[in-house]
Amino acid sequence: MRSKITVVGAGFVGSTLVQRLAERDYADVVMFDIVPNMPQGKALDMLEAGPVLGFDSQVTGTNSYEDTVGSDIVVITSGFPRKPGMSRDDLVKKNQEIVSQVTEQVVTYSPDSIIIVVTNPLDAMAQLAHKVSGFPRERVIGMAGVLDTARFRTFIAQEVGASVKDVQAYVLGGHGDTMVPLSRLCTVAGIPIAQLISAERIEQIVQRTRDGGAEIVKLLGTGSAYFAPSASVLQMIDSIILDKKMIMPCAAYLQGEYGIEGLYVGVPVKLGAKGIEEVVEIELTPKEKELLQKSADAVKELVAVMGI
Amino acid sequence: MRSKITVVGAGFVGSTLVQRLAERDYADVVMFDIVPNMPQGKALDMLEAGPVLGFDSQVTGTNSYEDTVGSDIVVITSGFPRKPGMSRDDLVKKNQEIVSQVTEQVVTYSPDSIIIVVTNPLDAMAQLAHKVSGFPRERVIGMAGVLDTARFRTFIAQEVGASVKDVQAYVLGGHGDTMVPLSRLCTVAGIPIAQLISAERIEQIVQRTRDGGAEIVKLLGTGSAYFAPSASVLQMIDSIILDKKMIMPCAAYLQGEYGIEGLYVGVPVKLGAKGIEEVVEIELTPKEKELLQKSADAVKELVAVMGI
Amino acid sequence: MRSKITVVGAGFVGSTLVQRLAERDYADVVMFDIVPNMPQGKALDMLEAGPVLGFDSQVTGTNSYEDTVGSDIVVITSGFPRKPGMSRDDLVKKNQEIVSQVTEQVVTYSPDSIIIVVTNPLDAMAQLAHKVSGFPRERVIGMAGVLDTARFRTFIAQEVGASVKDVQAYVLGGHGDTMVPLSRLCTVAGIPIAQLISAERIEQIVQRTRDGGAEIVKLLGTGSAYFAPSASVLQMIDSIILDKKMIMPCAAYLQGEYGIEGLYVGVPVKLGAKGIEEVVEIELTPKEKELLQKSADAVKELVAVMGI
Amino acid sequence: MRSKITVVGAGFVGSTLVQRLAERDYADVVMFDIVPNMPQGKALDMLEAGPVLGFDSQVTGTNSYEDTVGSDIVVITSGFPRKPGMSRDDLVKKNQEIVSQVTEQVVTYSPDSIIIVVTNPLDAMAQLAHKVSGFPRERVIGMAGVLDTARFRTFIAQEVGASVKDVQAYVLGGHGDTMVPLSRLCTVAGIPIAQLISAERIEQIVQRTRDGGAEIVKLLGTGSAYFAPSASVLQMIDSIILDKKMIMPCAAYLQGEYGIEGLYVGVPVKLGAKGIEEVVEIELTPKEKELLQKSADAVKELVAVMGI
Repeated sequence: MRSKITVVGAGFVGSTLVQRLAERDYADVVMFDIVPNMPQGKALDMLEAGPVLGFDSQVTGTNSYEDTVGSDIVVITSGFPRKPGMSRDDLVKKNQEIVSQVTEQVVTYSPDSIIIVVTNPLDAMAQLAHKVSGFPRERVIGMAGVLDTARFRTFIAQEVGASVKDVQAYVLGGHGDTMVPLSRLCTVAGIPIAQLISAERIEQIVQRTRDGGAEIVKLLGTGSAYFAPSASVLQMIDSIILDKKMIMPCAAYLQGEYGIEGLYVGVPVKLGAKGIEEVVEIELTPKEKELLQKSADAVKELVAVMGI
Repeated sequence: MRSKITVVGAGFVGSTLVQRLAERDYADVVMFDIVPNMPQGKALDMLEAGPVLGFDSQVTGTNSYEDTVGSDIVVITSGFPRKPGMSRDDLVKKNQEIVSQVTEQVVTYSPDSIIIVVTNPLDAMAQLAHKVSGFPRERVIGMAGVLDTARFRTFIAQEVGASVKDVQAYVLGGHGDTMVPLSRLCTVAGIPIAQLISAERIEQIVQRTRDGGAEIVKLLGTGSAYFAPSASVLQMIDSIILDKKMIMPCAAYLQGEYGIEGLYVGVPVKLGAKGIEEVVEIELTPKEKELLQKSADAVKELVAVMGI
Repeated sequence: MRSKITVVGAGFVGSTLVQRLAERDYADVVMFDIVPNMPQGKALDMLEAGPVLGFDSQVTGTNSYEDTVGSDIVVITSGFPRKPGMSRDDLVKKNQEIVSQVTEQVVTYSPDSIIIVVTNPLDAMAQLAHKVSGFPRERVIGMAGVLDTARFRTFIAQEVGASVKDVQAYVLGGHGDTMVPLSRLCTVAGIPIAQLISAERIEQIVQRTRDGGAEIVKLLGTGSAYFAPSASVLQMIDSIILDKKMIMPCAAYLQGEYGIEGLYVGVPVKLGAKGIEEVVEIELTPKEKELLQKSADAVKELVAVMGI
Repeated sequence: MRSKITVVGAGFVGSTLVQRLAERDYADVVMFDIVPNMPQGKALDMLEAGPVLGFDSQVTGTNSYEDTVGSDIVVITSGFPRKPGMSRDDLVKKNQEIVSQVTEQVVTYSPDSIIIVVTNPLDAMAQLAHKVSGFPRERVIGMAGVLDTARFRTFIAQEVGASVKDVQAYVLGGHGDTMVPLSRLCTVAGIPIAQLISAERIEQIVQRTRDGGAEIVKLLGTGSAYFAPSASVLQMIDSIILDKKMIMPCAAYLQGEYGIEGLYVGVPVKLGAKGIEEVVEIELTPKEKELLQKSADAVKELVAVMGI
């Protein structure tokens, strides 16, 4: 009855995700990385926390894809971060190569798995994994909106002095500049934020959300966010493994929904045991539609760079 | 009613501990580091996981001790790791300086706090913090035995194919070569391991436990263990904050117990709201006593190096 | 640092609440009942679950108020249920006597506590406890709206096949016929339910929510709901003990808010360490205001019956 | 990936177990009872706690075995309690009829399930379910030892003022007078209790453990224990569903182990995804062996009464 989850890439997002999954105790976890011995070391360190935390998950660090065989879910986190002086197109091409190779291995060893893509640029890489794997769209999902939404909710909660559990919000579209925070639908304990926060202040919070990843990068000096990103993937996996059917914003392959065809764009989806069980269509204002279309256009450009 | 916990040092052990504490949701947490902006960045990243994980702990990253004021517990993780070519005495002296300074700040801002020392060499640094703070021994505790015991339990569980929850074990004495794993008292679901594992194999597991930290360092290539160490500190804090009165092996200032006087050595202690509420004396065999004495002697030497 | 919580009344709501609190492990719990030995028996049974569930809360069953001394929170669940043939006024008078006596004991033994009233008719009994205790309104809160809202959310989640975690809703006003479910502000993952469910069907769900308690009573044959009611009180206590500042609908003493003066009515409040830290005013439609006023009028009538 | 668990009997043990399972959120749960509407009412009440507690388990109350189809685990709790004036043999015969009928339905609707028997007299009813079902012994397990052990651990923890998490203990043999608490192997944080508690006091605690169920019955006045019994079954199910391979004392069909052949007796077993994955043989003293044999003899007598 036990599920098997593979995380490809044992960097900070990947390994912190594995830590979180191990502690959930509902699946055995494989952490793959090409760096020799390193995933094994991190896995052993995690396992040694088991006795005090009370979990019995098997955590396997490996340099061999064979250990990932038969996974129910595979999370792809590997890839380069964007470095100073590197053009966006260079980044896309470098990560295209990595994600293509990883996806091929996933298809070989876990042909029935659900793939969750975390590598940036997120929407383009999800599009790539979908294409390379040949999996139906239900089983290739990109993580971005959950994280962006978590950031938006955090800032709103701080602004009004409320529990984060009370803040409901939605961020659609692409990860980054083309993000579409639906502040219109954001509520605190059911109360629209327009009744609680000034329009000007909301706009500042929206902008801070857009720059959320960069804010962390700047503070850290070196490296980028991993605590909230790994938690966001965890929530997606929870909804799939436990078949919770939670609705959350993810990058999904649209086939006409929201007027978009054949592209990965961040929209609300229902996640359950089968992966994406529904693309949920919210009525958008003309302005919101326009912003979402801009996100789609940005993905289209990156897809063109990849030549797929 | 909410407690306040400060973690000094936002490296991997420190920041992963803060992550774990934030998710426990029972205290507000301050993460101090001298590196500008970095603890703030890590704290923000953690907070942004709150909405998906459902916690509301305040997590404050700071470069100023003023923010730690009135803490109930302060964990000291700052210090240098031992680098190749560095003599043991050099390490002691470098970390002596750091831990002394930190302790003075703790005394100033949180005079009623319980201090948990994690910096290595652990027993010596606990001795130092006790001396510098002038706190009663109840309120200055060193973390080592919980981690060593967790490793021992992990290896035993793997050996017999059992749940880690079923393995009860004890590691006394110092952290490292002078560690005293009490395999005699180790049980799996109440069954003495001597009935389950050969004496030779037990000895190998004991040795692997002694080398537990080094094994991780070697695998990782760069850096050292932090998942299990941070979980171990968490367990100590749980027992204190929730007044669980759990008994676990910690470095404690002995005043005659186990025939040792005026030194920090790893022994079983009961942890509750007041810190160390009891030093538990187990009947030891002559051989075990001898090994524990050797641990005490090793601490004495380091204390001599520090000149305290 | 450990909190103390007393639950008065060891019936099913009371004892299931104590079970939930014990398992939270953040407070010691006293369960008072006038029936000799019974609360002691239930407490012992709960404690014996501790080793397998891993909690160490002290749970004390008692027939003596002295054991409740110094509680941080006192929950009043004692009282008669309405029996066939009993007039509403008779019920009010019977429970008035009980709640008055209990409140006096609370004032004597826990003068700084926060009182949560669960006894029906809820709003009237909260008004009574407020009057008898002389406590500021921050520290006398009635539980009803959280439960009604939980029911509403359950029905909505079932209707649209979504996770209950995604449904945000609000039920204001009195418990029972005068309940005011704000379906206008109800959302599923941020999406207004009007986009997902027909108006007619929403109205049916609203009516089912109003009859939520009666539906359970009818199915059970004997007795009434206690699983969801105890969970609802737990959520209020969580927000207080952990100072989460969650906003939830509770019966609160209004002093002009929503145009109501000197009465307990169900409205959104922010719960934190101090109890009610804020009465949150939502903009209501004229129709909703009218319904809320009707709720207030119903409470006023009951208060008149009690002659306070 | 979601498991399905059926609980037969919606009395207090059964329904509290369903509550616990629903909150674990890892399986869908069916609660069967012959009383019309009652299990439906309890199920609905539980579901309505979902929004505040955050679980999405399907909980189905039913009077029809068809709803239990394809269960992975079936727990049998139905049966009569022993009433004053009722002979032991009368009780056996009455419950024999019930457990036989239930088992037949389990075989029909869930032929691959693991059966956990809770109905008393426990060992005899497990023997009966094993016989009637024709299932291999791996898949028919009786719950008694976990509960008895939990009680023993609770009393020991109270005696020495320690956390229940630190007490390791073992109770073998039958439920009731023939219970065999192995105080010799009982430890507190690894320390044998003989070093902590006098022999006389240990004997009193052993006796109190034997009378554990009766103590609760006497205090309650009406009814019997259900909080700890339901938690004990939960632990068994956790180990099976999550494949934790925990070792715990359960009634198992012995085939020569401990010198006993063809009978259900309480011994340590390893529980995993396949049910009983190992009967663990502890070296017993001659006295302990004798007591265990007496337990076996008692089961044999009851089996004779049932004529199976």
